[in-house]
Amino acid sequence: MTQPRFITLEGGEGAGKSTQARALRTRLEALGHEVVLTREPGGAPGAEAIRHLLVTGDTGRWTPLAETLLHFAAREDHLAHTIRPALARGAWVVSDRFVDSTFAYQGGAQGVGEETVKALSALVIGADMPALTIILDLPVETGLARAHSRAGVDNSGEDRYERMEQVFHQTLRDAFLAIAKAQPERCVVIDASQSEEDVARQIWHSVTSRLAT
Amino acid sequence: MTQPRFITLEGGEGAGKSTQARALRTRLEALGHEVVLTREPGGAPGAEAIRHLLVTGDTGRWTPLAETLLHFAAREDHLAHTIRPALARGAWVVSDRFVDSTFAYQGGAQGVGEETVKALSALVIGADMPALTIILDLPVETGLARAHSRAGVDNSGEDRYERMEQVFHQTLRDAFLAIAKAQPERCVVIDASQSEEDVARQIWHSVTSRLAT
Repeated sequence: MTQPRFITLEGGEGAGKSTQARALRTRLEALGHEVVLTREPGGAPGAEAIRHLLVTGDTGRWTPLAETLLHFAAREDHLAHTIRPALARGAWVVSDRFVDSTFAYQGGAQGVGEETVKALSALVIGADMPALTIILDLPVETGLARAHSRAGVDNSGEDRYERMEQVFHQTLRDAFLAIAKAQPERCVVIDASQSEEDVARQIWHSVTSRLAT
Repeated sequence: MTQPRFITLEGGEGAGKSTQARALRTRLEALGHEVVLTREPGGAPGAEAIRHLLVTGDTGRWTPLAETLLHFAAREDHLAHTIRPALARGAWVVSDRFVDSTFAYQGGAQGVGEETVKALSALVIGADMPALTIILDLPVETGLARAHSRAGVDNSGEDRYERMEQVFHQTLRDAFLAIAKAQPERCVVIDASQSEEDVARQIWHSVTSRLAT
């Protein structure tokens, strides 16, 4: 029930997901593959419009359940218009965040519960789960410090999740590690406090040892 | 599992729901009640932002499942910020559309299926179902002609659902009638081709005979 060319990167704020996603694309393209680099929330026009509702504004603007439903609406749009068409034509898909973020953020840290996220996941994702999920793990303080220094050079205003409290981010980290422990056939945890090059090398090792590249 | 002061008005385009909702508010206020007149999709700031994504743009911009999830995200916001607080302080709530529109439009006419809408309904609405639902029934041609003549004096651009095909609107009408047949304890069908005054009189009769006003 997984898609052999679908890889997701997960982890808290400032773990280096988007940098590593780009590095992974470069390595896959060097083997001659088409690679679709995408992200959540977003990754398709409708999903990006929903993203705007999620990542801007007051931290309390949505109830956790409304937020969960918006993430799954965006994910359905992303799957329908970007991920499934790419996989169908044989491309690789590398997504910066996917459903594990909803399990960790809304299901865990925001208290919606695993069962609700599981039910929505079955409805929306079905058989299209990633074959490999890289969880970039980092102490909370390191991740937030990185995210804040990035915010200094970034005027997107997309900092709603970063502004949530530190205890929230610790719960989040624990949630990602629990997912990895429960689903070792799909998930690999990588220490993101290492250098960018070392992290990239370990990700590439996971990809080539687990998937047919 | 219903809220005794919660009334919804349902039906296809041009059936007179918003006019009749206002008339009902006037009659309830005349008895000294606080009345919150609201609508779906929308009825709270977050829900209205989601409404904008739903009622504008290309008719094919969302998959039926994405559309269903957006309606339930908006409904969760509407319940949390408008409906539940109003009912908690003893006000009456009159909503122009609610969950039956999702059963009829997305569940029926757009093919998502009743089971999916039921599951989402249990998750989001729980015990807060309306005690009375008025279904304003009209032949499809009459409703669309009324909606089109209204569009001539209305620049909102909120005509995405009206622009869907006639067969869609017939399926929709059949779906509302099927809901009423299956849940007669909650639903009343009223012939909306009568005069506004006659429709208002019949709605008021349903309210006073079924609910403690």
